[in-house]
Amino acid sequence: MPYGEPLSIVHHMENYRTPLDAAFHALSDPTRRAVISRLTKSPAPVKELAEPFDMGLPAFLKHLRVLEESGLITTEKTGRTRTCQVKIGRLAEAESWLSEQRALWQARTDRLADYVETQMSRDNENDG
Amino acid sequence: MPYGEPLSIVHHMENYRTPLDAAFHALSDPTRRAVISRLTKSPAPVKELAEPFDMGLPAFLKHLRVLEESGLITTEKTGRTRTCQVKIGRLAEAESWLSEQRALWQARTDRLADYVETQMSRDNENDG
Repeated sequence: MPYGEPLSIVHHMENYRTPLDAAFHALSDPTRRAVISRLTKSPAPVKELAEPFDMGLPAFLKHLRVLEESGLITTEKTGRTRTCQVKIGRLAEAESWLSEQRALWQARTDRLADYVETQMSRDNENDG
Repeated sequence: MPYGEPLSIVHHMENYRTPLDAAFHALSDPTRRAVISRLTKSPAPVKELAEPFDMGLPAFLKHLRVLEESGLITTEKTGRTRTCQVKIGRLAEAESWLSEQRALWQARTDRLADYVETQMSRDNENDG
């Protein structure tokens, strides 16, 4: 049955409130991150994706469902083969959120450094 | 008690296998992401951090513990005030993982585009 239906119909969606919640949750597992890494190189059928992992197919399919529901991958069935590919948009959204936070942090750090430099040059002037 | 002990001692650590697992898990919740965003601008005491959220302090402290255990924030107690600050290293690790995946995907996409272009120019030559 898991091969017969779209993975997303088989599975009851967990109640993630936003796409970012679902994306970060999907990325919190090493098997799922390894699948993403593999798929960045090329699309691949489920069987090939499952091979490197020491787990049963049902457990592996569960990971694929989490990835599919998060929008990080899409899957498509042709004949008896389900092929997966990475959906770069959702990955880019997660990356953007993180780089935005780092930019905010960096801006604050730069302001602090400017402040310290200004104070130090004032102190030097007062000493001179 | 939550104010008396380091947050990480009070809480039993969930069994995340790697720092990236813990970081992405911590980021999968909108309250925790909002706390990170707030802390990129400046360190802040727990009370101030909790204010914008419509939840009890125990629930909010649980979120802070998840963030602290993931290494995304540190907390420090001075007198009766616990102050939180963002730890940019762990955030940067998560960002790096994502940008690496996007780079791999981009490299593949570029190769595909090159291939298609080469094929098209060959076809044009054959037509001419």
